[in-house]
Amino acid sequence: MSGIEHRLHQLRTILADEGLDGAIVRSTDPYLGEYVPPELALRPWLTGFTGSMGEALVGREQAWLFADGRYWLQAEAEVDPRAWQVVRVGSSGALSAALLDRLEALARGRSEPLRIGFEADRVTEGERREWSRRLEDSVTLVAMDPSPVHRLRHLEGSPALSRLDGPMRSVGPDVMGSSVLERVEALFEPVPKSVDWLWVQRLDDVAYLSGLRGRGLPQQSTFRGVALAARDGLWVGLDGDRTRAAGLTAPGLDVMTRSELFERLGRQGGTVGCDPAHTTVSAWQDLSERARVVSCRLPVAAQKARKRPEELAAMRSGFRRADRVMATLIDEVCQRVVDGEPVTEKDVADRVEALFVEAGAVSLSFRVIAAAGTHGAIIHYGTPDPERVLGRGELLLVDCGGLFEAGYATDLTRTFLLGAPDETGSPRQRFIYTSVLRAAIAGMRARLAPGATGAQLDGIVREALWAEGLDYPHGTGHGVGINVHESPPRISGSSTTVLEAGHVFSIEPGHYDAEFGGVRIENVCTCVEDPDAPGFLRVEPLTFAPLDERLIDLERLRTDEREWLARYRQHA
Amino acid sequence: MSGIEHRLHQLRTILADEGLDGAIVRSTDPYLGEYVPPELALRPWLTGFTGSMGEALVGREQAWLFADGRYWLQAEAEVDPRAWQVVRVGSSGALSAALLDRLEALARGRSEPLRIGFEADRVTEGERREWSRRLEDSVTLVAMDPSPVHRLRHLEGSPALSRLDGPMRSVGPDVMGSSVLERVEALFEPVPKSVDWLWVQRLDDVAYLSGLRGRGLPQQSTFRGVALAARDGLWVGLDGDRTRAAGLTAPGLDVMTRSELFERLGRQGGTVGCDPAHTTVSAWQDLSERARVVSCRLPVAAQKARKRPEELAAMRSGFRRADRVMATLIDEVCQRVVDGEPVTEKDVADRVEALFVEAGAVSLSFRVIAAAGTHGAIIHYGTPDPERVLGRGELLLVDCGGLFEAGYATDLTRTFLLGAPDETGSPRQRFIYTSVLRAAIAGMRARLAPGATGAQLDGIVREALWAEGLDYPHGTGHGVGINVHESPPRISGSSTTVLEAGHVFSIEPGHYDAEFGGVRIENVCTCVEDPDAPGFLRVEPLTFAPLDERLIDLERLRTDEREWLARYRQHA
Repeated sequence: MSGIEHRLHQLRTILADEGLDGAIVRSTDPYLGEYVPPELALRPWLTGFTGSMGEALVGREQAWLFADGRYWLQAEAEVDPRAWQVVRVGSSGALSAALLDRLEALARGRSEPLRIGFEADRVTEGERREWSRRLEDSVTLVAMDPSPVHRLRHLEGSPALSRLDGPMRSVGPDVMGSSVLERVEALFEPVPKSVDWLWVQRLDDVAYLSGLRGRGLPQQSTFRGVALAARDGLWVGLDGDRTRAAGLTAPGLDVMTRSELFERLGRQGGTVGCDPAHTTVSAWQDLSERARVVSCRLPVAAQKARKRPEELAAMRSGFRRADRVMATLIDEVCQRVVDGEPVTEKDVADRVEALFVEAGAVSLSFRVIAAAGTHGAIIHYGTPDPERVLGRGELLLVDCGGLFEAGYATDLTRTFLLGAPDETGSPRQRFIYTSVLRAAIAGMRARLAPGATGAQLDGIVREALWAEGLDYPHGTGHGVGINVHESPPRISGSSTTVLEAGHVFSIEPGHYDAEFGGVRIENVCTCVEDPDAPGFLRVEPLTFAPLDERLIDLERLRTDEREWLARYRQHA
Repeated sequence: MSGIEHRLHQLRTILADEGLDGAIVRSTDPYLGEYVPPELALRPWLTGFTGSMGEALVGREQAWLFADGRYWLQAEAEVDPRAWQVVRVGSSGALSAALLDRLEALARGRSEPLRIGFEADRVTEGERREWSRRLEDSVTLVAMDPSPVHRLRHLEGSPALSRLDGPMRSVGPDVMGSSVLERVEALFEPVPKSVDWLWVQRLDDVAYLSGLRGRGLPQQSTFRGVALAARDGLWVGLDGDRTRAAGLTAPGLDVMTRSELFERLGRQGGTVGCDPAHTTVSAWQDLSERARVVSCRLPVAAQKARKRPEELAAMRSGFRRADRVMATLIDEVCQRVVDGEPVTEKDVADRVEALFVEAGAVSLSFRVIAAAGTHGAIIHYGTPDPERVLGRGELLLVDCGGLFEAGYATDLTRTFLLGAPDETGSPRQRFIYTSVLRAAIAGMRARLAPGATGAQLDGIVREALWAEGLDYPHGTGHGVGINVHESPPRISGSSTTVLEAGHVFSIEPGHYDAEFGGVRIENVCTCVEDPDAPGFLRVEPLTFAPLDERLIDLERLRTDEREWLARYRQHA
C-alpha cells in the first residue's frame, strides 16, 4: 500500500466511523485564498497532486480528483492511479459542478440519501447552500469541523499546522488614494441601514480595507486575519500575535486578535451582514452565536477593482522594475547560452528571484515558471528543473512577478529564443510567436464600448489565433492587485465582468503543443477613458518588457499592428 | 377616477379581502411565451402600458411599473401617473430584481412580514423559489390562483378569455430528422432512472417533441397545450378541443386534452421530473396532486438547438423564399420611389406580408419592421406608419420573417438606399453601412475553437464597430427555430452559451442614431465543422438576400473581407 493509499484508507476509516459515505476535500484553506500555505494544504497531501487547483471526492471504494485543462497532464503524472482517478474538467469554474455531477451519479438509484462530509472551514456558506439546492434529496451534506484530513495530517506529524505571520506594514492614502474611513464609507453605500457590521474574510479584502500589508504568507502581501467593518471604522482581528502590527495606526482602524474581535462583537451585538460567497460555513456559525447574521452582498470587490490614480502609480512603479528584471534576465540568459554555459531552468528561476530582490522586491508574487522547449507546453509549470539544461535555438518561457513595498503584485510572461541577437527562430517558432503576438496586440489596444464584458474582450483577443486554427486552454486574463489573481475582472469566454476605467488585468494569450512547446506573451493592462471616442474605453498596457523581435514575422502584421508595435517599443 | 384607477381600486379591495398587502402582476401568460395573446395580457389591462415586457407591483397605497430601457418613454407616456409610478430599470433581465428590491424596501422596519400575492399561473416554480430565498423572512409570498386581475377583467366583460386554436398539422422525420420516439429517448438520456415522466410546458418544446404545429396563436407555429414525456412515448394535452389534431398520428404520440392528460397521470401515478425554470407554480401544484414531483433539468433546449440536417434543409427552404421576398421588395420599393410614387412604411409592411403569402408562408413570424430615415433608430419599431412617405435618398430598414409549412421561423433584416441602381449613398450612409457590414462579416465567417461562447463571438462581431467608436444597444444574435427567438444559443456580451455544430442563430449588428437613423444587417447563420481546421467550427450564413452594393465602400474592406463578399454574392 502506497503512502497515499494508506492516507486514503485512514480517512475512509474515520468517515465510516462518522456514518459518512464520503467526503469532499478542497484545495482551498480557511482563508479562501488561491495560494495555500503548505502547512494548510490538505488536498495535495491527500492526493499527491501538487497543482494549486483541483477538488477531491473520496467515496467508499473510489476517489476522484477533478482537474481543469491546465492540470490534466500534471495530475495524471502525480497521482497514484490505484488510489485516485483523475477527472478531466474543461475549466476551473466547472470543477465543483463536475464533482456534484459525480455525487449525483453515485446517489442515483439508492433508496437513502448519500451522507457526504465537507470541510466547514474550507467551504463557503454560499457553496453549501448551492450544493444543497443542487443535490436536493439525493445527498445529505454534513459539516466536518475540523477537517478529518487536517487531523490525520497532524497525527502523521506533518509541518506545524499554525505558523505566525511575519512583521506587518501599512500604506496610507498617498499609496491607496483613499483612507480607511473613506473605504468603509464607500463599502456601506449600497448596504441597508439595518446592517451594523459587514464581515470581511477574504485576505486581500482585509488588506485592501485596512491598508495593512503582511509578509508572513508565502508570496503574498496579505496577512492572516479577518475584519468587521462598521460605518465609522474597521476592526481587524489578526490570527495569532498582534504585536506584529504594533504602531500601525490609521483613523478608524482598530487592530486586535481574532478572538478579541469575536468577544467584542459578542458584547456589542447588532446585525452582521455576511456575504455567503465570501464567508466560510465555520465563520457563519461563529458569527451567528454572537450577533444577528443576515445575507448581504459585500460590495468590496468592485471598489477594490477600480484602481485609483495613486494605486496605479504605485503599481506602475513595480511594473517598471519587473520589466527591467525581465530585460536583464533575457539578455543574461541568452548570453550565457550563446557562451556555451550550462544553464538550467532552475538557474533561471533562481536568477529571477535574485533580480527581483536586487530591484527592491519584498518577495516574488508567485513561483517562477521557467520552461524550456517542450516544458513550455505545461501551462502551470511550477517546478523549474535543476537538471534541464537550456539548449541553443530553443524557446524559453518565463512567467514571474514580484511584490514591492506598497504590496501590489506584478505579473509578466515573456517567451524568447535562446540565441544570439542576430539569430532568428525557426519558421514554426516565428509563426506561433507572431500569431500569439497578434492576439496580444488585439487585446492591448482594444477599444471597448460602455458595458463591454470580459468575454467580449476575450473573443477579440482569440480571434487572431482562431483564424489560424490555434487556441489556448486557459482564460485570456485575470485582475491584478494586492493578489496577483484578483477577481473581478476576469477576461475569459464566460466572464460577464463589465470592464471599467481603472481595472487592471493581464492579457496573456498563448499556444501550447506537447511536441513544439509553448509560447505565451503576458502584459498587465488597464482601461482608460478613450480620448478619441467619447464614452468608450481603451485598453492600454502597463508592462513593457521587450518582445522578442527575432521571433516576429513583421510581414504577417497589418499596418496598424506594426504601428502599435513601434509605439510599444518606445516605452520598453 | 380614471378607468385604470378604478381597476386598481377593485384589485386593492380583493387583495384586502384576502389579507394581502399587495400583489405582483406579470407580463407573461400561462404559456410563459414571449408573445402574449391579447386576451391573456393582464398587465397591460391593469396598467395601461402596452409594451411587451414590464413587471407591475401593486401596494396598498402606491403601484409601480418596472420598465427596461427600451420602454421608459413609452411607459411614462402610457400610464396614468395618478395610479402608476414608472420605475426605470436598466435591462429586462433586471426587472424582477428591481421589483424585489422595492418589496424589500417596503418590508423594511415592519415587525410582521409583508403578505404579497403572485399569479400562480404566470410565475415559474424556479422564480417562486428564488424570490422566496431572496426575500427571506421579510415578505411572505402567497400564490393567487387564478389571478384576481383575470377575474376582474372577466367581470368587466373583456374579450373572450379562452379562444380555440386553429387547425393543426404535423411534420415527420423527413422534416425533423428524428421521430417522436427518438426525441423522447434522447430527452431521457441524462435523466435519473427514478424519473418516469418529464413535464413539458414551454410551447415550442411541446411542438418540437411532438412534431405538431399550430396556427391559432398569432405569428407562431406552436399551439396551446402541454406534454408529458415518458421513455416510450409522449402525451400531448391540448387546451380546449382536440378535434383540431384529429388524424395527426406518429408512433409513440398520444394526443388528448389537458384535463384528460391530468386524469390519466392521476390513474397511472409515478415520478414526474419538472424543471422549476419552465414549470408554473400552478402546474407544479396540479402535478403534485397526482404524482410524485421532483426537480429535474429538462434537457430539451440543448437538443432542440442542435438542428439536424433535415431540419436545416427545411429551414433553408424557408430562408431561400424569404430571401426572394426581400430581393423582390427591395427592387419594387426602390423602383416605386424612383418613379415618384408615394409609398409609406405601412405600404412596405403590407407588401412584405403579401409577398410572404405569395411565397407560400403560413404567416409572418413577427410584426414587420419597416422604418424609414430616423425611424430606423427605434430598434423595436413595431408600427409602420401609414402616413410616413418614403423619401428618395433615405435609408429604409426592413426586418421581417415568415413561417412556412414545416413550422420554422425565418428572420432577415436589410437596410437599403431608396434610389436608383446607379445611385450611391451619402458618405455618412456609406460609412455606417460599411462599418456594420464589416461587423456582420466578422461574425458570418468567424472560426470558433471548441467551447467558444456566444459572448466571444459577440466580441468578434463588435470589434470592427468599436474600433470606429460605434456600437449597438442590443445583442448580436438569438437562436432561431420553431420560435423566431429560441434560446440557447444567444450571442451577446453576457452569453455563456457554448456554440455547437447545428446551432442556428442570427448575426445582426447595427448602428442607431436619433439624427441619422438606423442601419442593421441581419443574416441567420449556422455553425459547421470547419474542414480546414480540425476540431474548430466555422460560422456560415443561411440567408443570402442581396446586400446594398450602393452603400458599400469597398476600399474600407480588407482583401479577405472582399473575397468573402464575392463568395456571398454568388449565393444571392
